Amino acid sequence: MAADPTRLKEYECFKDLTDEQREAVSQFTLVEHFQPGHTMFEEGKEATHIFLLSVGEVEVLYSIGEEGPSRVDKVQSGEIIGCSALIEPYIYTSTTRSLTEVEVMVIEAAALRQLMVEDCALGFSIQKDLIRMLLDRIIDLRLGV
Amino acid sequence: MAADPTRLKEYECFKDLTDEQREAVSQFTLVEHFQPGHTMFEEGKEATHIFLLSVGEVEVLYSIGEEGPSRVDKVQSGEIIGCSALIEPYIYTSTTRSLTEVEVMVIEAAALRQLMVEDCALGFSIQKDLIRMLLDRIIDLRLGV
Repeated sequence: MAADPTRLKEYECFKDLTDEQREAVSQFTLVEHFQPGHTMFEEGKEATHIFLLSVGEVEVLYSIGEEGPSRVDKVQSGEIIGCSALIEPYIYTSTTRSLTEVEVMVIEAAALRQLMVEDCALGFSIQKDLIRMLLDRIIDLRLGV
Repeated sequence: MAADPTRLKEYECFKDLTDEQREAVSQFTLVEHFQPGHTMFEEGKEATHIFLLSVGEVEVLYSIGEEGPSRVDKVQSGEIIGCSALIEPYIYTSTTRSLTEVEVMVIEAAALRQLMVEDCALGFSIQKDLIRMLLDRIIDLRLGV
C-alpha cells in the first residue's frame, strides 16, 4: 500500500518539508505490516530501505565476537531505523527484528538519496533532523534510558 | 592561533571539502590548549562553538535527576564535540571537561552554520559525515566500547 504523504509529517525528518516534497517522498514509500519475529534487515547486507516505525516495537541485534547476533537495543514506534541506508557505504550496521506486530513505512533509500542530492535544501533539511534524532538517541544511550 | 586549513583534513567532516572550502572554515577556527579540569562548555548553555579534539581526552557529564553533573562518557582525540551547536535550538546537551592537557580546534558555530546554508553542497557534505560519525558513536555506545 502506497503511503499517505500527510503521515510523513509525524516523523521529525519529514516534518519541515513542503507538501510537494512529502508528496515526492511518498511516491517511493510503502506501508507494510510484519508479524513478531520478522527480520526487517540484516547486519552487513546492502542497505536498500529506511523504515519509519509507526506501530510496535523492534529489537536491534549485533554480532559481537564469534557469537551470533545478540540484542543491544530496543526501538519504539515513532523512530526511524536503518539510517545507514542514507550514508555510504550503504551497509546495514545491525540486524533489526520485530518484537511485536509492527506497521512500518518503508522508503526506497536510493530514490530518497537521489532526491536529497537533486534538491539540496530538502537533503539538508532531512539530514539536520536526522542529526537531531541521533543526538537524542546518544543521550538516551549514555543515560541508559 | 588561527588554524591551519590542512589540519581540518584529519577530521571526517572536513575531509571531503575542497581546499577553498577548508580555507573558508579555517578563517573562523582557532587552535586552543586547555589544562586538565577545564570546562569547555556547559549543559543547557547556548552552543556557540564546535570543538575538534586534536590531542588529549575529555569527559562528558550530564545532570541526572537532582544530582550534579556526573560522567557518562569519555571522548578521545580525533572526535568532534559540541555537535548540538549545529542543530537548533543550539543548546549544549552536556557538559564537557578536559581530563588531560588537550589541544582543540575551536570553530565558531554561527559562522559555520551560515557557510553551510550559503553553500548547500558544503552543508550537505559536512552533515553527511556528521551522521556517519554519530552512527559509529551509537554502535560504540550500544556495544559498551
